[in-house]
Amino acid sequence: MRRTVAIIGGTVALTALAGALRYADASPTVVFVLSGAALGGLAWLIGVATESVGSRFGHRVTGVLQSTLGNLPELFIVLFALSAGEIVVAQTSILGSLFANALLVLGLAIVAGSQAAADGQMRFRKRLPNDTATLLLLALSVIALLGLSDRLGDRASKHEVAISVVGAVCLLAVYGAWLWSYLRSERGVEPAIEEPAHGGMPFTPALVMLAVAGVAAAFVSDWFVHALDPAVEALHISKAFTGIVIVGIAGNAVENVVGITLAAKGRSDLAVSVVKNSVAQVAAFLFPVLVLLSLFFSERLTFVLNPVYVAALAVTALAVWQITGDGEAYAFEGLALVAIYVIVATVTYFE
Amino acid sequence: MRRTVAIIGGTVALTALAGALRYADASPTVVFVLSGAALGGLAWLIGVATESVGSRFGHRVTGVLQSTLGNLPELFIVLFALSAGEIVVAQTSILGSLFANALLVLGLAIVAGSQAAADGQMRFRKRLPNDTATLLLLALSVIALLGLSDRLGDRASKHEVAISVVGAVCLLAVYGAWLWSYLRSERGVEPAIEEPAHGGMPFTPALVMLAVAGVAAAFVSDWFVHALDPAVEALHISKAFTGIVIVGIAGNAVENVVGITLAAKGRSDLAVSVVKNSVAQVAAFLFPVLVLLSLFFSERLTFVLNPVYVAALAVTALAVWQITGDGEAYAFEGLALVAIYVIVATVTYFE
Amino acid sequence: MRRTVAIIGGTVALTALAGALRYADASPTVVFVLSGAALGGLAWLIGVATESVGSRFGHRVTGVLQSTLGNLPELFIVLFALSAGEIVVAQTSILGSLFANALLVLGLAIVAGSQAAADGQMRFRKRLPNDTATLLLLALSVIALLGLSDRLGDRASKHEVAISVVGAVCLLAVYGAWLWSYLRSERGVEPAIEEPAHGGMPFTPALVMLAVAGVAAAFVSDWFVHALDPAVEALHISKAFTGIVIVGIAGNAVENVVGITLAAKGRSDLAVSVVKNSVAQVAAFLFPVLVLLSLFFSERLTFVLNPVYVAALAVTALAVWQITGDGEAYAFEGLALVAIYVIVATVTYFE
Repeated sequence: MRRTVAIIGGTVALTALAGALRYADASPTVVFVLSGAALGGLAWLIGVATESVGSRFGHRVTGVLQSTLGNLPELFIVLFALSAGEIVVAQTSILGSLFANALLVLGLAIVAGSQAAADGQMRFRKRLPNDTATLLLLALSVIALLGLSDRLGDRASKHEVAISVVGAVCLLAVYGAWLWSYLRSERGVEPAIEEPAHGGMPFTPALVMLAVAGVAAAFVSDWFVHALDPAVEALHISKAFTGIVIVGIAGNAVENVVGITLAAKGRSDLAVSVVKNSVAQVAAFLFPVLVLLSLFFSERLTFVLNPVYVAALAVTALAVWQITGDGEAYAFEGLALVAIYVIVATVTYFE
Repeated sequence: MRRTVAIIGGTVALTALAGALRYADASPTVVFVLSGAALGGLAWLIGVATESVGSRFGHRVTGVLQSTLGNLPELFIVLFALSAGEIVVAQTSILGSLFANALLVLGLAIVAGSQAAADGQMRFRKRLPNDTATLLLLALSVIALLGLSDRLGDRASKHEVAISVVGAVCLLAVYGAWLWSYLRSERGVEPAIEEPAHGGMPFTPALVMLAVAGVAAAFVSDWFVHALDPAVEALHISKAFTGIVIVGIAGNAVENVVGITLAAKGRSDLAVSVVKNSVAQVAAFLFPVLVLLSLFFSERLTFVLNPVYVAALAVTALAVWQITGDGEAYAFEGLALVAIYVIVATVTYFE
Repeated sequence: MRRTVAIIGGTVALTALAGALRYADASPTVVFVLSGAALGGLAWLIGVATESVGSRFGHRVTGVLQSTLGNLPELFIVLFALSAGEIVVAQTSILGSLFANALLVLGLAIVAGSQAAADGQMRFRKRLPNDTATLLLLALSVIALLGLSDRLGDRASKHEVAISVVGAVCLLAVYGAWLWSYLRSERGVEPAIEEPAHGGMPFTPALVMLAVAGVAAAFVSDWFVHALDPAVEALHISKAFTGIVIVGIAGNAVENVVGITLAAKGRSDLAVSVVKNSVAQVAAFLFPVLVLLSLFFSERLTFVLNPVYVAALAVTALAVWQITGDGEAYAFEGLALVAIYVIVATVTYFE
């Protein structure tokens, strides 16, 4: 509880400072760093609040609420980036969330979980990893076909918005069908969260905190995107790197902390569930929803990505499936996922 | 039985009408649509006749006969397309059969099959899905290596016919070895077809119907290909779309109807067997045989495809393996396959 | 024992002859062929000697020693090729070892092993195949991302040496973690080698033979690379074909003979272990070590490969995982691997 209060305090301070400096026209680099850190804190608070709110409805609803609201910061960043015409930041922020969750967080969770197991082998139920692999492959099929069609200058590329819309609708339909069957069919099977992971809050304060943190996340995202252009120039990092690495890590603080902590405690199924739900949601819900929302902006978000990211996504989908599809993982397999993340980040850094 | 008679009647009528109009120089669009529909009916009749003929030799022979003869319409269309120099139609007709079977039909069969299961999970034996995945990966290796080599303008591309021939021989050798072991090793293991799926016909009429429908399929394919060029122009659809979607669906009526019906009745293994045998055969038998046959034509059919289709094939192979390789499937996984088909069709439509 | 003596004699004769002719300025083609054959013999002797030396330390150490020293000829060839500026030969020699082991040798071992099984199905433990698949996917991720980045002329390609170094360090870290857990965790589980596969030698002679054969391999590699340029011109084969096929097969004589012989005797786990360890080591140890060593040469070895080989590597990783990941394999699956090797070799031949 004391830790929660400390984090709330720190996040409020960071948010206030970032806001003050942004409107005081301070150095964009400072605003950029502070608002990035504040986003991480807000993502964490949203996670805690969601869990406490959700505990009234049962833990499966909590899980889904958590991954949905835990992706709020990314959602805001992408929307503000789109409205500022920063299409690269918008795309790479989505990809960054995906890579951070599927490679870095899952990898570290496997390392932690296999250390916690007596025989060095983390075990978990197979269904969610395989479902996530299916959804990733589906997202990949849209992205790879559109990307190739665009790269080759075929006629289809002139219709990339139309095809992206069809792809988005397909992804959302399958995601909906999956979510429905996931929530329904596993009733009573999934291990219950007996005690809340963060020390629960009462319902009303949690609801208030959720609302406040959500609104704050929207503001901070705006400052973050506003400071981004001058900051990346001053820091000599590329926009792609900002999206893939900085947004990817800052925006997924919840999954980072919760997933790895649960794995270290030996609660493999819950750890895998938090991380995998988030991956599935970014690929098959957040991305298509943003593609559809972007129809109301002047800059359109499509599924046409830089081929390097298409390849990175393909490798990610395959590695995640190969490593977790059999329901067991060793430490070196977690390291392999982390290594792929490092390689993607390195390539992006030099891009 | 009554249904069979009705379908025979309808198919005869359609075939006669298509033929009359084709020689009366009627609108190519009408001939195109009528002969497409007639091909669907003929494919179905060939399926029924094969099953009745094959029942004399046991159900494993029936299965192989059925997928071989069920692919007769595609074979004729590709041959007539080759002789008319329509290389795009030839290639995309083969791919269309593959995508229609592996994505659309399999997907719908999984949806039907998982609805039929009490717990929403369709279960089937793992071997055939994994064998099909192996054969698809092998076909993919030929197609991907040749496609890349061609695209990059390397020296190898000048030898694409020679490499395609080597690839075709390799594919046929592995397919032969697989078929041999499949027919031999599973004796007595595979669930028997106790009653024929369509209400059996006596041997001699079935044989006659098979012969007549086969000859008719050859004629109708000729009319179909002849009407294709003006028809696609009038209908504003591309040749690739005709091959991928229209031939893909019309030419696989048997697998469509039989596979989905069996799955809905809860006969998962048979449903999977009909669909998967057909996929394996198109990829590892029909395609290489046509590559070799095309050596006798002025236009050569090679394994060099548009990269968009190479990617679509890769995604198809991976998704089919991932979804069916573990011997169980949920409705949303079937939907995911259908969604990939919709995406491939959409990209092709705009191509 | 008599066979060992005969092979020692033959190898000594071949080595002496190759050396004499090389310094007598004989036809490079003859030197090339003789030193290629001598390398095969030396690889085999190193294998026998390693096994006898290692038997003092237990069979797991033997396995690792064997795959490490068994890759000595490739190591020397690549180093001499690098110092001669033959970057294509260096790269394709590494790839050739990988393809020869993962496709040709594994494929033949599966064919032999499934013939030896009563029901035509070779069975082995799943862990090593899946670990190898993980390591191959990791290597693929470095190679695919760098290759695409280079091909697209993005900014990252200017930094390909830096990224290759990061990739190499990642690969070595994961390989180290894997090797550690593999050697430790499987203690007492892996089937013991009760009798040495080649009829054991006493310790001291084995150690002497190891040292002599190792030094000889270094010399012969030098002659081989020196004769390569004029020889491939005279023989009308490409350098890529030399690396992929000739070095691939000559340099892996140990794995060839031992793996297939063990499989034919029904000792599936050992056969798979010899072949898979070698694949894992080439991909995740030899390649990155050579990338790092090349920093001391004027020509740098990077992970940037011809896209055709990237695709071949991707197909290889997928096929090996798909076929062996479930711990069982049929003859036709072994044939499929051999067929992929034939296709890769054919494309390389025409390159």
